Amino acid sequence: MPEYKVVTSDIDPKDAVLVSPENNQQIVTQAKFTLAFKGAEEKVGQVFKLKCFLEEDEIGLSQVMMNKLGITEGEKVRLQSIGRTISRSFPLIKQRITQPGRMFTKNEIDQIISDITLDNMTPLEESVFLTSQMLQEWSIGEIECLTNAIAHSGQMINWGDTVIFDKHSLGGVPGNKVTLLVVPIIAAAGLTIPKTSSRAITSPSGTADTMEALGCKIEFTIDEMVDIAHNIGGLIAWTGGLNIVPADEKIIRDVQYPLGIDPEPMMMASVISKKVAMGVKFLVLDIPTGYGTKVASLDDGKRIAHRFAELGRLLGIRIESGITYGSSPVGNAIGPGLEAREALTSLMNPLEAPHSLVGKSTSLAGILLEMAGKAIAGAGQEMAYEILNSGQAYQKFQEILEAQNAEPDLKPENIEVGSATYDYLAPQSGYVVEINNKVIVRAARAAGAPMDKRAGVYFHKKKDSVKRGEPLFTLHAPSEKKLSAAQAELTKGDLPVTIEGMLLARE
Amino acid sequence: MPEYKVVTSDIDPKDAVLVSPENNQQIVTQAKFTLAFKGAEEKVGQVFKLKCFLEEDEIGLSQVMMNKLGITEGEKVRLQSIGRTISRSFPLIKQRITQPGRMFTKNEIDQIISDITLDNMTPLEESVFLTSQMLQEWSIGEIECLTNAIAHSGQMINWGDTVIFDKHSLGGVPGNKVTLLVVPIIAAAGLTIPKTSSRAITSPSGTADTMEALGCKIEFTIDEMVDIAHNIGGLIAWTGGLNIVPADEKIIRDVQYPLGIDPEPMMMASVISKKVAMGVKFLVLDIPTGYGTKVASLDDGKRIAHRFAELGRLLGIRIESGITYGSSPVGNAIGPGLEAREALTSLMNPLEAPHSLVGKSTSLAGILLEMAGKAIAGAGQEMAYEILNSGQAYQKFQEILEAQNAEPDLKPENIEVGSATYDYLAPQSGYVVEINNKVIVRAARAAGAPMDKRAGVYFHKKKDSVKRGEPLFTLHAPSEKKLSAAQAELTKGDLPVTIEGMLLARE
Repeated sequence: MPEYKVVTSDIDPKDAVLVSPENNQQIVTQAKFTLAFKGAEEKVGQVFKLKCFLEEDEIGLSQVMMNKLGITEGEKVRLQSIGRTISRSFPLIKQRITQPGRMFTKNEIDQIISDITLDNMTPLEESVFLTSQMLQEWSIGEIECLTNAIAHSGQMINWGDTVIFDKHSLGGVPGNKVTLLVVPIIAAAGLTIPKTSSRAITSPSGTADTMEALGCKIEFTIDEMVDIAHNIGGLIAWTGGLNIVPADEKIIRDVQYPLGIDPEPMMMASVISKKVAMGVKFLVLDIPTGYGTKVASLDDGKRIAHRFAELGRLLGIRIESGITYGSSPVGNAIGPGLEAREALTSLMNPLEAPHSLVGKSTSLAGILLEMAGKAIAGAGQEMAYEILNSGQAYQKFQEILEAQNAEPDLKPENIEVGSATYDYLAPQSGYVVEINNKVIVRAARAAGAPMDKRAGVYFHKKKDSVKRGEPLFTLHAPSEKKLSAAQAELTKGDLPVTIEGMLLARE
Repeated sequence: MPEYKVVTSDIDPKDAVLVSPENNQQIVTQAKFTLAFKGAEEKVGQVFKLKCFLEEDEIGLSQVMMNKLGITEGEKVRLQSIGRTISRSFPLIKQRITQPGRMFTKNEIDQIISDITLDNMTPLEESVFLTSQMLQEWSIGEIECLTNAIAHSGQMINWGDTVIFDKHSLGGVPGNKVTLLVVPIIAAAGLTIPKTSSRAITSPSGTADTMEALGCKIEFTIDEMVDIAHNIGGLIAWTGGLNIVPADEKIIRDVQYPLGIDPEPMMMASVISKKVAMGVKFLVLDIPTGYGTKVASLDDGKRIAHRFAELGRLLGIRIESGITYGSSPVGNAIGPGLEAREALTSLMNPLEAPHSLVGKSTSLAGILLEMAGKAIAGAGQEMAYEILNSGQAYQKFQEILEAQNAEPDLKPENIEVGSATYDYLAPQSGYVVEINNKVIVRAARAAGAPMDKRAGVYFHKKKDSVKRGEPLFTLHAPSEKKLSAAQAELTKGDLPVTIEGMLLARE
């Protein structure tokens, strides 16, 4: 058994390895022993402060590591500095930041994305890459390279001769169950639309969550997905199950989600890389604008639409955008179960469905129908209405339900929603001028959404006139406890609903 | 003992807590159980990939944590999402990045630095703050606030009526033992210069390392430091021992050191915050320019000098800068032991000392003597020469050695240097036109510097004509093994020394 000696005092544990003094071989990497410092359990993701929990001549090793190394407690060990570890791509990122006019080449972007995919880059390095994208202009050519590199970081799907259509929303609007109407309309028109969707990250329900509330299986292998799409023209699968764009997933997990940042080059590459990997050729992009969305104004929406179209041209994807109103929820329902009910009801009885839901769904579907040459210019939405009103879309949706292991004759009232309810009453008479999406989202999430599919909010009045005391919306929660938590969110700051003439504050 | 149930599949462990299902109380925070995942020892600082090492319905807890919670292996537990944790300061940092023309207020900067000091901000958040400083202009008023906030994050030193002088170098030049001459010259002139210095981070020796090679104690309490400075006018202490500017230390450790970035606002605040905390009133700043330093050109050096002067005016510190040549080592010795020998020899026999060392030391000391009114404008360097040549500086240095627990009559030849040596011979005759600092630094560090005080490089020829086969420099290492490692660095890329007319490469 080797002799060990302690020489820790001058070395930051982050930069040290434990070595055998006999042959100078590294035997424990930095991570292995920093982790093992006493108190380390309090400090993951933080810096380890040696002084705080150990004497100056002590280091800590886990019992497992001590057994592995044949070291017993009290024995002396030797540490050796290994210096900084910086990925080979990081100098490129620094150059792009510090050298005026420096742009990335295709090879450089490929290398950066490869380092991210292979776990060679630390989250700290990745955050510099993302932060610089918030402050530096990226050329559309650089974004093309970024998109392609991310697309090729995982599985690429080959559809043979089948032309693939798709619909994507930049998000930020609660209640946006539009996909559940667009997919069956497009598939019913004879086109192929294998839609992949995410679960909610910050919203009360993602499309994948809403599909689960309908009892659908959403995790497929690529072969299963291709089969269903070839057979019935459409499905709504969960992106996460498919091993496409792992680089995108890693960047989101390491930096974008923890920091809540979404710089435009990465946002565009994130959306379109999935389409490249999925083999999409025609895409309609929903760009919601307004308070709480990613796009502040109509002008900014137009600018982003043009950039996406240009990116699509470089990548061989035709992209058209619909810039939509995003300051109010779409339809009346928010939360997986309530949204599933509303989507299913709307497919079954489109004439009684909320105008905001049917109007948005048919306009986006109409753009795709025109792009496909199924409808002449200007007649797409009309055709989408016909497919919806004739029951063809509902019939196609039943096929999708069946293909995704759900009950095709599912009744909306059989979808479970939270039985603990609270009616929020109009504090005065007047006209509803604004719904504060952020407050509504917080309340729905406090009620348990999206994890608990029964939680959510249902609006009785949106842009309507109301009488004092009438219910504006109902909170649904799975328990009284969750309901109280959701109610509490309604009184924490801004009012959930603004009625014309209302005094907002008095100071 | 409570019953537990596993519901891990949808939750990223980063964002979860372990809760008791009985009362919904959080019992283990995210850090505590992410750390405990099997294989976590491989992954500190990285994202934990649940799927890689555990079954989908398993989580791992350390034995310690299981004992603490009264859980036995195989028992079921419940996880609950806690969402993102973002510090209260981070939205301010995002606003500064995304809103055109947005500047920080004093209160905002105070809040950010307070969050950093109190460990409320993650390294990921800090890296966004630092990266934005690489890409956005900071006003001098913002830098003033940053400097003050960092200064007030730790101990502030009160000197009463004593006026404090100081010297600081922006660094990047190997062999820069100038401080060991400047401090005794200034103290011998009757001024007070309690110099605090760092250990080497990326160089072969920091001033603190060189002082240790002289046998000096460098870690003092503030009271001890104040006592010595009052009694003999000068000392050279290690900054790290004093608990000043902990916010600066944390930023360096979390972001600047791991990423190797040093944006100008932070660089300025880092230097001057220490001076504010130390109560400095007159500062001479050494700004080395040239390849390998932080300042690329003389013009850039002047710009930075003016910015420092302006920052000093706002903070009540008079700052004058000397822009110095930084492309070659200062003096002939590099590495703690060799530099200690050279500094001591130069104090004892200044007439035989290297011109680059004595010239630089007296010019910087001269600026301070003029600022203090000890010498009239233009006569400062002459006065510094006199103090040095008359032996007064050496006498003061002996007092400093004694005050710092070293032997005042220490002989240079008694300072140990590595006995394993290698002479690098001139490959051709000619004139030495360039020394490649980066190669020399790599070799000295490979030989063991700064941790092993005996390791280093000693130059026989710098800007001289040489004959083929003459030794240009000697490597010193504590062992033959270390010597081989250092020799290997000399042949890895660029030549260590360029001789006029030399063919650098042939392809």
